[in-house]
Amino acid sequence: MAKPDSLQSLYLDEIKDLYDAENRIVKALPKLAEASTNPMLRDAFNEHLQVSRGHVKRLETIFADLGEKASGKTCNGIKGIIDEGSDALDYDAGSMKDAALIGGAQRVEHYEIAAYGTARTWAEHLGRTADVQLLDQTLQEEKEADRKLTAIAEGNNVNEEARETPKLTH
Amino acid sequence: MAKPDSLQSLYLDEIKDLYDAENRIVKALPKLAEASTNPMLRDAFNEHLQVSRGHVKRLETIFADLGEKASGKTCNGIKGIIDEGSDALDYDAGSMKDAALIGGAQRVEHYEIAAYGTARTWAEHLGRTADVQLLDQTLQEEKEADRKLTAIAEGNNVNEEARETPKLTH
Repeated sequence: MAKPDSLQSLYLDEIKDLYDAENRIVKALPKLAEASTNPMLRDAFNEHLQVSRGHVKRLETIFADLGEKASGKTCNGIKGIIDEGSDALDYDAGSMKDAALIGGAQRVEHYEIAAYGTARTWAEHLGRTADVQLLDQTLQEEKEADRKLTAIAEGNNVNEEARETPKLTH
Repeated sequence: MAKPDSLQSLYLDEIKDLYDAENRIVKALPKLAEASTNPMLRDAFNEHLQVSRGHVKRLETIFADLGEKASGKTCNGIKGIIDEGSDALDYDAGSMKDAALIGGAQRVEHYEIAAYGTARTWAEHLGRTADVQLLDQTLQEEKEADRKLTAIAEGNNVNEEARETPKLTH
């Protein structure tokens, strides 16, 4: 990958990184939903799958406005996070598995919060106001998804129940 | 790595993941400081290096209280994030490079915010109040570091200056 020579090309790289990240997330979410024990957690992952498809579309709008073909640049950050989170898919069903799935998903959300925050700031500095609005909508949805996961973990005592299960069969 | 069989073993895995992450960060920060053009950014990275050494010590205290040897479990999340962020080290010195360094560092901070948040919640559910306090101190310091990076990027117009440099030599 050539070195970016301006904030505009750095910004394009960031959009490509996010495009790769969102596509990986769209692929991972059905597995997380299927692996969930708590129905509220499964619903949250399925809902976030729909929302994430919208994030992909927003990035495609930005590519089009930039006069660029929509394409990803391998996002090693999300790749590593999804890789380590996938350990939990093999755990035995139950609240401990749910707690681990939530822990992994919140790392994904925070990666995106940081990356969309950076992209939005750069779009502002480039005077790309339409992009700022699109990126900010997605940023708020990522923050909301993170809050929802925290609420499920705490409100439904996913972690509390996991504590009560000292030994699961496997 | 064996499958964890209780929230306590899941928690220990999380502490090992964080221990590996913090040690990688302690190794990466001097390179980020050296690569910075803006002296405020360089100072922020150097200051965070000191703070991160304290985070390593706190994790060692938790390991000792758990009766476990301090050891890391390869953290693929941070590994991937540091890997992608290291691209910026090769950029030509200037505000665009600083903007890219900040973008990478904020991904690191957010990874840690998610991971320490998860660890703190699990420590609460396990009734490990001393750990909760240690993890919460670190969590607040990570949030503060993230805010400081945003302030440097916005307050000093790191990104604004990058926009003014349409073509850097390389």
